[in-house]
Amino acid sequence: MTKRRIAALIFDGFEMLDLYGPLELFSMHRDDFDIVTVAADAGPMTASGGPATLAEAGFADGHRYDMVLVPGGRGVRAAQVDQAHLDWLAQVCDQAEVVMSVCTGSALLAAAGVLDGKRATTNKIAFDWVKGLHPAPDWQERARWVVDGKVYTSSGVSAGMDMALDVIKDLIGAQAAKDAAHWAEYIPNPDPENDPFAP
Amino acid sequence: MTKRRIAALIFDGFEMLDLYGPLELFSMHRDDFDIVTVAADAGPMTASGGPATLAEAGFADGHRYDMVLVPGGRGVRAAQVDQAHLDWLAQVCDQAEVVMSVCTGSALLAAAGVLDGKRATTNKIAFDWVKGLHPAPDWQERARWVVDGKVYTSSGVSAGMDMALDVIKDLIGAQAAKDAAHWAEYIPNPDPENDPFAP
Repeated sequence: MTKRRIAALIFDGFEMLDLYGPLELFSMHRDDFDIVTVAADAGPMTASGGPATLAEAGFADGHRYDMVLVPGGRGVRAAQVDQAHLDWLAQVCDQAEVVMSVCTGSALLAAAGVLDGKRATTNKIAFDWVKGLHPAPDWQERARWVVDGKVYTSSGVSAGMDMALDVIKDLIGAQAAKDAAHWAEYIPNPDPENDPFAP
Repeated sequence: MTKRRIAALIFDGFEMLDLYGPLELFSMHRDDFDIVTVAADAGPMTASGGPATLAEAGFADGHRYDMVLVPGGRGVRAAQVDQAHLDWLAQVCDQAEVVMSVCTGSALLAAAGVLDGKRATTNKIAFDWVKGLHPAPDWQERARWVVDGKVYTSSGVSAGMDMALDVIKDLIGAQAAKDAAHWAEYIPNPDPENDPFAP
């Protein structure tokens, strides 16, 4: 069995549930996934309106990761114009088997060029802002989440959990996804086109 | 407008989403709620299968809190036999306007005597374990969450988000709860008796 290592990017102003919703579900299969929090520098990064999470690794550590998870949040505004973030993302996303973003995390992926020519989505309240700043991706306004090749982008905040279950299904099977949802007592929205928050 | 201060208890082995699901929703109303992470000692506490969160305050700080949030997770096993945890919980829950637990966090509340004679629930997979250890509460097996006076206890992991929305509704109104769910693109289960995970 391949154990995949997930780089969970954090930065000051990340949105709590964007990160922890998917991580909760991946953590249900700890024989299959390892979670590593990564930031520009190892150390505490404060969530938007919440506590600080410790980044275990920094960009300079040069680790390779099988999967990348990029949350959104207020901190995206600064991170998307920070060259260190964009360089790290371009490199780890190129190497990774699976790339994921939640909410406005897709703006970061777009800024790093990871979504060029790809179908993608983002938070519905911030949709026009993200699309205006980053015209290269083929943005989908009605989608709980979008899969284009190895890149999974989800709509706002809790949509990341439905996306994570789809990733678990694709990587280790439908039963594993069902188990993760059951153990978390999560009632999933299994249809990526069922988006009650689209305008 | 009263701004309420929430003590979010953390300990090594807390379950990530038990904590961060509710915190995400409270953080949507930052004019109404302040979040403070609290642990036996201030500093990092490592989630079950996940990264460390920094506790901003320790038990000895002696702060008063308007609300208390107690997550579950593997770490409950140690915390529920630790007198410092039980003493702190008994004191802050007595002073608080609202007490909340998610998942096996209710075992901690029960161990501290906070649930004596009260209706309560817990994670459905761990139900018999919690009930066997703590016979005093009136445990409800079929409930997404239970409200008894000022004490809200939820079923497993993501049920905490539905409970948090109910608390937001009770404290600052139905529209505020609806807004928080909408901003988080969360599809709520608004019926505490709708528990698809009951046996």
